[in-house]
Amino acid sequence: MTVLILTCEEDVTADMVVARLNASGVPVVRLDPAGLTRSVGLSAEFGNGSLRGRLTVDGRLVNLAALRSVWVRRPGGAASGAAHPSAWLTEESSQALYGMLRGTGARWMNDPDAAHRARYKPWQLRLAQRCGLPVPATLITTFPGAAREFAGRYPDLVVKPVSGAHPQDPPRAVPTSRVPPGADFSAVAHGPTLLQRRVVKRADIRLTAVGGRLLAARTSVLSPGDPEEVDVRFAASREPWRPTAVPRYAAEGVRAYLREARLAYGAFDFAEDEEGTWWFLECNQSGQFGFVEVDTGQPISRTIAEWLARPGAERPATAPRTRTTAC
Amino acid sequence: MTVLILTCEEDVTADMVVARLNASGVPVVRLDPAGLTRSVGLSAEFGNGSLRGRLTVDGRLVNLAALRSVWVRRPGGAASGAAHPSAWLTEESSQALYGMLRGTGARWMNDPDAAHRARYKPWQLRLAQRCGLPVPATLITTFPGAAREFAGRYPDLVVKPVSGAHPQDPPRAVPTSRVPPGADFSAVAHGPTLLQRRVVKRADIRLTAVGGRLLAARTSVLSPGDPEEVDVRFAASREPWRPTAVPRYAAEGVRAYLREARLAYGAFDFAEDEEGTWWFLECNQSGQFGFVEVDTGQPISRTIAEWLARPGAERPATAPRTRTTAC
Repeated sequence: MTVLILTCEEDVTADMVVARLNASGVPVVRLDPAGLTRSVGLSAEFGNGSLRGRLTVDGRLVNLAALRSVWVRRPGGAASGAAHPSAWLTEESSQALYGMLRGTGARWMNDPDAAHRARYKPWQLRLAQRCGLPVPATLITTFPGAAREFAGRYPDLVVKPVSGAHPQDPPRAVPTSRVPPGADFSAVAHGPTLLQRRVVKRADIRLTAVGGRLLAARTSVLSPGDPEEVDVRFAASREPWRPTAVPRYAAEGVRAYLREARLAYGAFDFAEDEEGTWWFLECNQSGQFGFVEVDTGQPISRTIAEWLARPGAERPATAPRTRTTAC
Repeated sequence: MTVLILTCEEDVTADMVVARLNASGVPVVRLDPAGLTRSVGLSAEFGNGSLRGRLTVDGRLVNLAALRSVWVRRPGGAASGAAHPSAWLTEESSQALYGMLRGTGARWMNDPDAAHRARYKPWQLRLAQRCGLPVPATLITTFPGAAREFAGRYPDLVVKPVSGAHPQDPPRAVPTSRVPPGADFSAVAHGPTLLQRRVVKRADIRLTAVGGRLLAARTSVLSPGDPEEVDVRFAASREPWRPTAVPRYAAEGVRAYLREARLAYGAFDFAEDEEGTWWFLECNQSGQFGFVEVDTGQPISRTIAEWLARPGAERPATAPRTRTTAC
C-alpha cells in the first residue's frame, strides 16, 4: 500500500515527511500534477462495476487500488508544465487526475472538497464559534455605516483580507493592519472588508493538528505595548517558537472543528491575550509547519508520516448495489 | 422565511420558479453576485458566539437568520459587474458572500461543496457504479497503448471531454463524437482522453431529480441505425421529450447517488439501449430543465419551488459548545 504525495518539485517540507516514510519502509510516490503528461501519466478503466486505474511518475507505476493515503501538499496546476499548456488542458487534466483519485478508497490529508470549503474565512469564524472557540468580534461588510458603528463599539480594530491571500502568482499574503482612530470607512462600499477587534496579545499560538494529535507552539510578543505589531508573519523580531500545553477548551474546540470540517490536518492561529485566553484567528488547512518544527523540535513531520502510513482505507461509499452492472 | 435565488439577471428558467413562489406567497429574493457591491450589499457580524448578518438587493433587506433555502441557479461571478472588476475583488467578494451563506442553517439546492465535487466525471462514473447504475465501459487515459487495447476490446467507441464543457466565457459544450475505426491514438499522450463504449441506443433519457422526486423524460432516436447521431444536444432532429416511467433499478440507483453525492437536484442523462436498459452517462448537478418541462408538461419548476419553500432549516452543525464565548 502506497502513500501518494501531491506536491511541486521544490518542497523541503515534503522532503522531511518523505524521509520519515522511507526510513519506515512505507512505499511513497511523489507526484506533481504539473508533470501531466510529460513525466506523469494516468489511466483508469470503469467496467463491470469496478474501477481499475494506475498512475505513472517517471516510469514508476502506482496501482490506484494500492493507494493507502493521499497527501495534498503543494501540488502544481495540472498539466501546467506541458509543452503547450492551456486552460482547457489544465481543466481536463485536473478533472481526470482528481476525479480518479476521488474514486479510490484512499484516506486524504486533506480531502479536496473539505479543503475547498475550509478556505472560506466567514465559514471558519462561524464554525469556530459553534465549536466553542473564542472568536474576536468580527465584521465583514460593504456598508460604511456598519463599519463606523462597529468601530464605535470596538475602537481598537484591525483590518485583514476576507480571503487571506492575494490571488496573484505566486500568491502573496496581505498583512493584517491596524485601523487608525477616526478612519474613513467610505471605501468599504467598494468591496467587502473584514474588521476585527484587536486582541491585545502577549503571545502568538500556532496549533498544528494532525489527525487527533495537537501540537501547540507559542511565541511571546516582545513588545506587547506596541500596537503596530499585529501580524506575527511580518514582525520585525520575535522569540523562537516553544512548545506549549493546549488548554482543555481549545483542545475540545479544535477537535470539534476538525471533525465538523472533515479535516485531517489544520494549522490553527490563535492570539493569547493578557488573561491567557486563546482567541481563534484562523485555521489554514494547508498551513506550513516546517518553521515550527525547526524551532520547537516537535515531531510534526513524523506525526504526518505516521498518519499517512497508517493501514486501512476509509470506509467506501455505502450506497446499495441494487443490480449487477455489466459493461 | 425567505428563499434566496442566486442567478444572473436573464434567466427565464429561474423566472418560472419565482412565479410559482410568488403565487404561493413565499418571500423570495433574487440576487446576482455580479451585482456586488453596486446593487448588492452584505454585512455579517460575528460576536458573542453568534452570527448576525444581512444581505441587500436593490435596497431590499434579507436577514441571514431568516433564510429558508438557497437555490444556486446561474450566479454571475462575484463583483464581476463592479465599476473596477479584478480577480482580487472577485475573490474577496466570493469568500465574503458564500462564506456567510455557508454559515447559515439554510437548505441548499445544491450545497456548493457537494456541487463542486459533483462536477468530476470520473468520480461520477465511480459513484454511479457503486450505486448499481449500469455504466458503459469507459477509459480515461494518457497512454496511447491503453487506448488501442481498449479499442481492440470495444471497437465501437465515442470520445468526449473529461470535464464536460470548454472553460471559455461563456462555457461551450463540446459534443460527444464517434471514434472512427482504425483511429490513431497517439495524440492521447498529450492530454487525458475519455473513451466510452458507444451504447447503441433507441432513446435518450433525461431524469430530473428534485429532492426525492424523480421526473423522467424520453425521446426516441429517429434513426437508430445512424452511428453519427450520438449526442442528443446536437441532434439534427428528434422527437419531443415525453414523460416516461422510471425502472426500479434506476430509481434506486439515482436515489442512492443523490444521497451519497449530497445533492438536492440532479439532471441525469441515460442512453436507453435496444433491450431497454438505461445506461448512465452523466449527472449534471446544475442541468437545465426548462426544455423538458416545455415538452412534457412535467411539473419540474413547481417541484423545485415546493422544495425551496419547505419550512425547516437543515440541522445546524452539532459540534459541542464547550465554553461560552465572549467578544
